[in-house]
Amino acid sequence: MRGVVLNAPDDVYVEERDDPRIVEPTDAVIRVAATCVCGSDLWPYRGVEKIDGPAPMGHEYVGVVEEVGDQVTTIRPGQFVVGSFFASDNTCEICRAGYPSSCVNRVLMGTIGTQSQRARIPLADGTLVATPEPPPADLVPSLLAASDVLGTGWFGAVAAAAGPGKTVAVVGDGAVGLCAVLAATRLGAERIVAMSRHQDRQNLAREFGATDIVTERGAEGVARIKDMTGGLGAHSVIEAVGTLESMTQAIRSTRPGGHVGFVGLAHDVQLPVEELFYAQVHLHGGPAPVRRFLPELIELIWNREIDPGKVFDLTLPLEQAAEAYRAMNERRAIKALLTP
Amino acid sequence: MRGVVLNAPDDVYVEERDDPRIVEPTDAVIRVAATCVCGSDLWPYRGVEKIDGPAPMGHEYVGVVEEVGDQVTTIRPGQFVVGSFFASDNTCEICRAGYPSSCVNRVLMGTIGTQSQRARIPLADGTLVATPEPPPADLVPSLLAASDVLGTGWFGAVAAAAGPGKTVAVVGDGAVGLCAVLAATRLGAERIVAMSRHQDRQNLAREFGATDIVTERGAEGVARIKDMTGGLGAHSVIEAVGTLESMTQAIRSTRPGGHVGFVGLAHDVQLPVEELFYAQVHLHGGPAPVRRFLPELIELIWNREIDPGKVFDLTLPLEQAAEAYRAMNERRAIKALLTP
Repeated sequence: MRGVVLNAPDDVYVEERDDPRIVEPTDAVIRVAATCVCGSDLWPYRGVEKIDGPAPMGHEYVGVVEEVGDQVTTIRPGQFVVGSFFASDNTCEICRAGYPSSCVNRVLMGTIGTQSQRARIPLADGTLVATPEPPPADLVPSLLAASDVLGTGWFGAVAAAAGPGKTVAVVGDGAVGLCAVLAATRLGAERIVAMSRHQDRQNLAREFGATDIVTERGAEGVARIKDMTGGLGAHSVIEAVGTLESMTQAIRSTRPGGHVGFVGLAHDVQLPVEELFYAQVHLHGGPAPVRRFLPELIELIWNREIDPGKVFDLTLPLEQAAEAYRAMNERRAIKALLTP
Repeated sequence: MRGVVLNAPDDVYVEERDDPRIVEPTDAVIRVAATCVCGSDLWPYRGVEKIDGPAPMGHEYVGVVEEVGDQVTTIRPGQFVVGSFFASDNTCEICRAGYPSSCVNRVLMGTIGTQSQRARIPLADGTLVATPEPPPADLVPSLLAASDVLGTGWFGAVAAAAGPGKTVAVVGDGAVGLCAVLAATRLGAERIVAMSRHQDRQNLAREFGATDIVTERGAEGVARIKDMTGGLGAHSVIEAVGTLESMTQAIRSTRPGGHVGFVGLAHDVQLPVEELFYAQVHLHGGPAPVRRFLPELIELIWNREIDPGKVFDLTLPLEQAAEAYRAMNERRAIKALLTP
């Protein structure tokens, strides 16, 4: 089968590799219907995150089950399924508490690589959620979005305690930030401020429910949020970038007692604890427990109540993965979908 | 009147200064019945926190109201009152949300100095809570504890979401850590692990409800907590020290999805965001909103359901404040009460 490999920074290509097969009796093998490039894939692509030789890429996927192991009981061949970037058993104490991305038996899908024609999915019963029937083609991008960016934005909004009566600010206008706007809307937030300086992303943010756009960043951005909230700051702020600047902007934009949901994957960011101490915010985040939200998200998509697939503004065949990485890296695309 | 002044590191003494008077119409002046030395007073005493010339000291106090300003409506002369280390209006949006220590009109009592015979209390109606009647002498230490260490430990336990069915660990065996043990007990925690290597503090922790003592620190301490919790970590961890080591120990002792309440006042501590990201804990803390808890804490003390005054293992006349600082600095005393 064909699959995407990153060999070194800027050096990504599609190669022939062995078809995946059942290794553990709890595995499934799926034929990937759609996959995509994640903002986090750009970290090793840019050389910020070191890789050790050629690495299979990708951790977002929807597809059709081809084969299951002997111990798989609920997932069946022929089902159309959505998974997320951690395989999880969905039965351990951590999963049951709502944190499948920290499952005691978790497997990071990025080490398997789903930017490919087929993929082995460990812990299939725990990891995969089947759609009611094979989806119409126009729902596939939204289902794929649920696999990571929607689930991550949703977690950010939940971690930030977005809800009725709340003013929510979103730092970061990538696919995750935009999905966080959508999540805040669905969670009933009163006012949703998207922080963005790109017209196309501002437009999508508005479409997803943003009531206000703030183009300023850093201290000016914080000052604008304070101005809009009687000097107090937002109740809920979602951080969807992963830099010291964005974390600081998020914390300073939040009122005392408010909530910061941080889902941007940080690299070498040191946060001064004194700032956090006096800010008196609630801070929660990390790798999103997407599996927790999948049944609800799939239902919303299935009923056409949300259309997160709009974050995909570039669709390419898998063979053109290199162009997909380039387009996202150069910010010519918000998010690129790949069809295997 | 007599009052404590810190002139330079290690140089603390009692001097004669002007009696306080009503400055704002919302002020009260109290005759201090009891005050004490805080762990945070030791930061400037040790020279870790810089001071600018002679500074009045102290922010914990109980006393009798002598005089009130024209706009004070609920607090009356003759009442015995408990306040906390921030004066707050108790009416602004932040106060009403439960965060009086970030009140938009807050005044830091440490800038006024309550290690003295009398003290001006700004925003008296918002700040002070009166006892039902003048307390018997044996309740005074516990009421004084409510002013800071009990309220702070209580906030740590609430921020850590301590409650029924939870395993709670407490990092730090100072007065705040011990009060956090007491709070976790009252909040109904199932198992409470005090991390301490001092016999006298272990004994008081047990008396306050600790079910287990862990003497190991750092990585060994974390390993012990994991051992006790099926490898997962505690549900709730209270950090009551304020160093990188204690923050790290607290975060690593907490299971994914669990809660860290941090109330140790940190100085120059930088927290790696990646660690926080992958730990997937809830982090909340800061200067405790003691005023939120005062009515409940005073009632518990008044009904003799809790006895947090036991943290005071040294009582000295105000004139011997220097010895009180020395005893706490050398860890000969957990906490020193001063009688003006």
